[in-house]
Amino acid sequence: MIAVHLTVPVWVWFIFVVSVLALFVAFLFTREVLGADNGTPAMQAISTAIREGAEAFMKRQYTTIYGFSLLLGVLLFAFYAVTKDTHLAMITVVSFFAGAICSGLAGFSGMFVSIRANLRAASAARTSLNRAMQLALRGGAVTGLLVVALSLLGVGIIFCVFGGLNPADGYAAAKTVPYEIVGFGFGASFVALFAQLGGGIYTKAADVGADLVGKVEAGIPEDDPRNPAVIADLVGDNVGDCAGRGADLFESTAAENIGAMILAVALYSIFGIKGILFPFVARAFGIVASSIGVLSVKLKNEDEDPMVALNRGYYITTVLAAIGFYIAVRYLLNNNIWFFVAGLVGMANCFLFVWITQYYTEYRYRPVKSIAEASLTGPATNIISGLAVGMESTAFPVLAISGSILASFYCGKMALPGVSGAGLFGTAVATMGMLATAAYILAMDTFGPITDNAGGIIEMSHAPEEVRRRTDRLDSVGNTTKALTKGYAIGSAALAAFLLFSAYIDAINELIIKSPQKYGMLVNGLMVTDPSKLLGSVDISKPPIFVASLIGAALVILFSSMAITAVGKAAQTVIQEVRRQFKENPGIMLGTSKPDYGQCVDIVTKGALKAMVAPGLLAVCVPVGVGFIFRLFATNSNPTLAAEAVAGLLMVGTISGILFAIFMNNGGGAWDNAKKFIETGAFGGKGGDPHKAAVVGDTVGDPFKDTAGPSIHVLIKLLCTVTFVMAPLFLK
Amino acid sequence: MIAVHLTVPVWVWFIFVVSVLALFVAFLFTREVLGADNGTPAMQAISTAIREGAEAFMKRQYTTIYGFSLLLGVLLFAFYAVTKDTHLAMITVVSFFAGAICSGLAGFSGMFVSIRANLRAASAARTSLNRAMQLALRGGAVTGLLVVALSLLGVGIIFCVFGGLNPADGYAAAKTVPYEIVGFGFGASFVALFAQLGGGIYTKAADVGADLVGKVEAGIPEDDPRNPAVIADLVGDNVGDCAGRGADLFESTAAENIGAMILAVALYSIFGIKGILFPFVARAFGIVASSIGVLSVKLKNEDEDPMVALNRGYYITTVLAAIGFYIAVRYLLNNNIWFFVAGLVGMANCFLFVWITQYYTEYRYRPVKSIAEASLTGPATNIISGLAVGMESTAFPVLAISGSILASFYCGKMALPGVSGAGLFGTAVATMGMLATAAYILAMDTFGPITDNAGGIIEMSHAPEEVRRRTDRLDSVGNTTKALTKGYAIGSAALAAFLLFSAYIDAINELIIKSPQKYGMLVNGLMVTDPSKLLGSVDISKPPIFVASLIGAALVILFSSMAITAVGKAAQTVIQEVRRQFKENPGIMLGTSKPDYGQCVDIVTKGALKAMVAPGLLAVCVPVGVGFIFRLFATNSNPTLAAEAVAGLLMVGTISGILFAIFMNNGGGAWDNAKKFIETGAFGGKGGDPHKAAVVGDTVGDPFKDTAGPSIHVLIKLLCTVTFVMAPLFLK
Repeated sequence: MIAVHLTVPVWVWFIFVVSVLALFVAFLFTREVLGADNGTPAMQAISTAIREGAEAFMKRQYTTIYGFSLLLGVLLFAFYAVTKDTHLAMITVVSFFAGAICSGLAGFSGMFVSIRANLRAASAARTSLNRAMQLALRGGAVTGLLVVALSLLGVGIIFCVFGGLNPADGYAAAKTVPYEIVGFGFGASFVALFAQLGGGIYTKAADVGADLVGKVEAGIPEDDPRNPAVIADLVGDNVGDCAGRGADLFESTAAENIGAMILAVALYSIFGIKGILFPFVARAFGIVASSIGVLSVKLKNEDEDPMVALNRGYYITTVLAAIGFYIAVRYLLNNNIWFFVAGLVGMANCFLFVWITQYYTEYRYRPVKSIAEASLTGPATNIISGLAVGMESTAFPVLAISGSILASFYCGKMALPGVSGAGLFGTAVATMGMLATAAYILAMDTFGPITDNAGGIIEMSHAPEEVRRRTDRLDSVGNTTKALTKGYAIGSAALAAFLLFSAYIDAINELIIKSPQKYGMLVNGLMVTDPSKLLGSVDISKPPIFVASLIGAALVILFSSMAITAVGKAAQTVIQEVRRQFKENPGIMLGTSKPDYGQCVDIVTKGALKAMVAPGLLAVCVPVGVGFIFRLFATNSNPTLAAEAVAGLLMVGTISGILFAIFMNNGGGAWDNAKKFIETGAFGGKGGDPHKAAVVGDTVGDPFKDTAGPSIHVLIKLLCTVTFVMAPLFLK
Repeated sequence: MIAVHLTVPVWVWFIFVVSVLALFVAFLFTREVLGADNGTPAMQAISTAIREGAEAFMKRQYTTIYGFSLLLGVLLFAFYAVTKDTHLAMITVVSFFAGAICSGLAGFSGMFVSIRANLRAASAARTSLNRAMQLALRGGAVTGLLVVALSLLGVGIIFCVFGGLNPADGYAAAKTVPYEIVGFGFGASFVALFAQLGGGIYTKAADVGADLVGKVEAGIPEDDPRNPAVIADLVGDNVGDCAGRGADLFESTAAENIGAMILAVALYSIFGIKGILFPFVARAFGIVASSIGVLSVKLKNEDEDPMVALNRGYYITTVLAAIGFYIAVRYLLNNNIWFFVAGLVGMANCFLFVWITQYYTEYRYRPVKSIAEASLTGPATNIISGLAVGMESTAFPVLAISGSILASFYCGKMALPGVSGAGLFGTAVATMGMLATAAYILAMDTFGPITDNAGGIIEMSHAPEEVRRRTDRLDSVGNTTKALTKGYAIGSAALAAFLLFSAYIDAINELIIKSPQKYGMLVNGLMVTDPSKLLGSVDISKPPIFVASLIGAALVILFSSMAITAVGKAAQTVIQEVRRQFKENPGIMLGTSKPDYGQCVDIVTKGALKAMVAPGLLAVCVPVGVGFIFRLFATNSNPTLAAEAVAGLLMVGTISGILFAIFMNNGGGAWDNAKKFIETGAFGGKGGDPHKAAVVGDTVGDPFKDTAGPSIHVLIKLLCTVTFVMAPLFLK
């Protein structure tokens, strides 16, 4: 029987080999993409402008982010020094930096490829839809693979480096190391928050600015080369969607990985080190499945809908991931089939989220149609209707998450009846199931900005109508995949956060158990943990916990407000610049002189970086501040008051975050497609009054779906990781 | 010493005498208002049309509501019959009907006066601003006094009838009766939900319909008699603002009263029956204070700002209420000064809410100005900016509520150190403090629709410019008071809900303690309550509780979506009708023939009543459904699973409700005043493009601030009372 040979070292090798192989596959995709034909000089000129803009922004953005990270790392060390545990302080800070660096690396390298893939996809579109689609997807897959592989490799290496996998002590340290490396998740969250916020503000400020002056005031079409902000707009698609979502999912996978390890510690007596390795192995199988999925995508003929081909690849990925999951359960979780079922629950949740998102954001269905119809009576009814659709769209995802959490919880309980922690491990397994296809989903997501850019390049280089039709088809598919990924991202963020709550409570209690001299009581002359001092519940019926929960929910809303306002502020600077160029250089509109694209790129870069600071700091400071303030009221008999309050803040903040993110993502997506629906000729088509009303809705939806909404995904996980890392400081 | 004579019967007499006196004062105000000059025949004709429309709507609305109530009463009896306690079933159902009837009575009688006061205020405005203001305020005070007095009287009589005040048994039943009469609060909530929803949908459907066809399509001014929907619009001000808010605050006071009594039961060993009487006495003093406050309002001269005079009355009311509060604490709560401080905390919270609401909704301050400025770049930026302001405006109220809850909780703890339940009683006392001025606030609120209608009557009857200026001044003050009352209503709803949570948990545990044979254990051969079966916490870290909490938060958002959509649907019917009339009868626009106002009133009545059903049923069915479903998973060792899940739904639903209501109320108010600010001449003034953009924002804000937002206040309390009444059925 083969099982005999599948010892722990074999699995460890498997994990590392797959991660490295994934990086190699990413390299092959990169070579393939870069080696493809790169079009006419006109196309190259545009692509170069986009690339330079994106790289300039990314460089400045990451410089800022790493500046903050450095500061925070020092603060973190200082905070921990108070607890006098310099070993833990060191591990935390090193993990923090590792997480921050890996996240940045994944985002940056992914971007490197995608801003080059746009040109190749555009060039290929001149001859073959299939080839263009493949290049865009494989360019996107570089981001997908890098994100997941670097997350796996990063957590794995950190875990090993700090002694988590030491056969010499019989893997005893594996029970404590997972708690200590949460800093990795925090580092990833911290970078992701600013990456998503900065990118999200950039993309929408450029978009709104370009549209308001270009389309509305000057009456020139979208992606018109005469618009000075057009390059900034195309840059935005990359830095917002591609880099932002990459950082977002990097964080989800890292946080889920660590959270699941912590929950596996509770089951150490049953699965031993294998339970702790399980999340890695499940993820590794997911990478293999995703790579094959990406390679399998091919149009049956040039007339096939690219979305059908992408979905086919997704189904293949899901089936392969499920098989891998089964193998992992078989060999690592004692072939306990209930855990396999829990994993399937996670995959089903993924499907549900994708379907629901489609229903609420595609114009084939009632919601978007109702918005388009409401445009007949003007912008006000369009807006009211869009807001109502966005709000309504929260209901089914909530039922899906609720069902998944409960079903996987009961799977866990059925798997190991009577074992405490088994139910929660079931939810962890479901999260792994949901995230198993992350690399493929990210490839589809990054496909979006690549095809969007390809369309822009084709448009601006005045390519023939037939080519434009091809890129338009790809672009429209890209819009769909971007919307779906947002659904996926918030669904997985919700599950990952739920995992981290449990891990947070475990971590608090671990700290209490570790200090019997402080939190203990004398039993027969022996100092043991006083069970009444443990954090047994997060009881929102207590006034302090209720108040902290209320603050958590309000934090999300204030954060959204700040993110939206930031877009408006940054957009104002773009508007002024575009107006200035039109006024000072009338040749631009006549087509006789070229606008100064670089100036717009520069202005929106500065604006976005400045605007991302306030909401970012708010997200970090509020939970920490609440913890510190409530700690003042903690007593020796109730040392966990602040820790419990922060848990309330975290959980209710997450609930509020899930709902607000879905509301904003779907509302924005629905407005966008209501406009597109009218542009297909419905309700008077392009140029009519209903279309103008729909453009208003689309503009309102932009900061919703591309700035505030996705930033909330990251906020949710940041709240979890920041509180987790600060946990020791919340105890009296 | 006088204290010797202030025995329990004296206080009981005091309560009933004050209630009856308040009804008498309301009668005197009514006589004064009805006896005032009622203007020219032209004015009377308009007022009659408004009155008939309002009465027709109210009659049909209450017929529908009481139909539902009857059905629900029967269902309630049937549900309770399952528990085999027919005595309790009877009390619950009788209380339910009593609450429903008192709420309806208060709303209907208040409306009776206010739809007549509009004409008298309009008539008085022809000669004196002061007299017009006084008539409008006293007309509004009838609603205020009726609401508070009927709530006091209703709860008081029910309490006595069911034996709560029986000196023969040494007031022993006072410890159980408060739990049994929660049905009163449920009845009031149930009526309030439909009253507010129906009224809110009516008012905005008529408003949006009248504006979109009249102002936008036909280009005629607001309140133009040629608009067929103009009377429906004026009717809407009454049925939405006046009747809706009246029912809302009736519910708050009733629910707070019963909740506070339940919390006082926990302190029975300390205060005895006096603690249970305290909420009544504090309320009675509040009525006295409010009556004097209303009578004191008078302009110093015809040029004084009416808002200053109204504020003066409010300060007088607050000071008198504080003095009454002190007396009540002195004689009923053992002169324990900390409880007086808790009451002051509640009053301070009231002030804070009013200030914050002013800051976010008046155009003197940054937020509204920023929306007006954003209108320069069109409707999209106006909307984005308004949404951001609405979201931002949740932060400070949350801090105010948080501070009030914590401060009053600690006051309670300081008042009775070491006594369990003292802290929560402190928060109850703060709620009483906040609600002490309810009658005055309601008078100010109803002042709004009365002056709005008076303005409409003056406008439509072509009165001289000078008179219009007077009614415009009053109307603008009325807009402010309406906005402030919404802040007050949500602040008090939040505190009242917090009170009811605690009471709900008490009630669950009371049920468990009452049934030792079911939930008990044998100790020394004696069946006693098993403490492990009590509902000790509402632990949202447990998956089922977290899921229920998530559903609670989503419920609020789905409910908002349905309320907003309902306005749109009902408005569509009005739009079609107005267009039809304009088309079929061209004489209307020429001013040669009269439009058919009655038809519009009839159509919007039908539309609003139909549209209120779905969101109303959702609000009742979801908490009950979640309770029943989770009950299936409860086990004998954990009989409170469903009760705990419902508590989570309730609390997180309340958090989400507080935030959404503030967001919608303030966002809507800010949009409204941004438009008004531009109309004062800023950014190009009336008719310019920024003004058009601001009109879009105002229209979007309408269903926010007048339908969904206020309905959420009611929803919050309905959730509390429905779960409370159903509590016995959630236990295994």
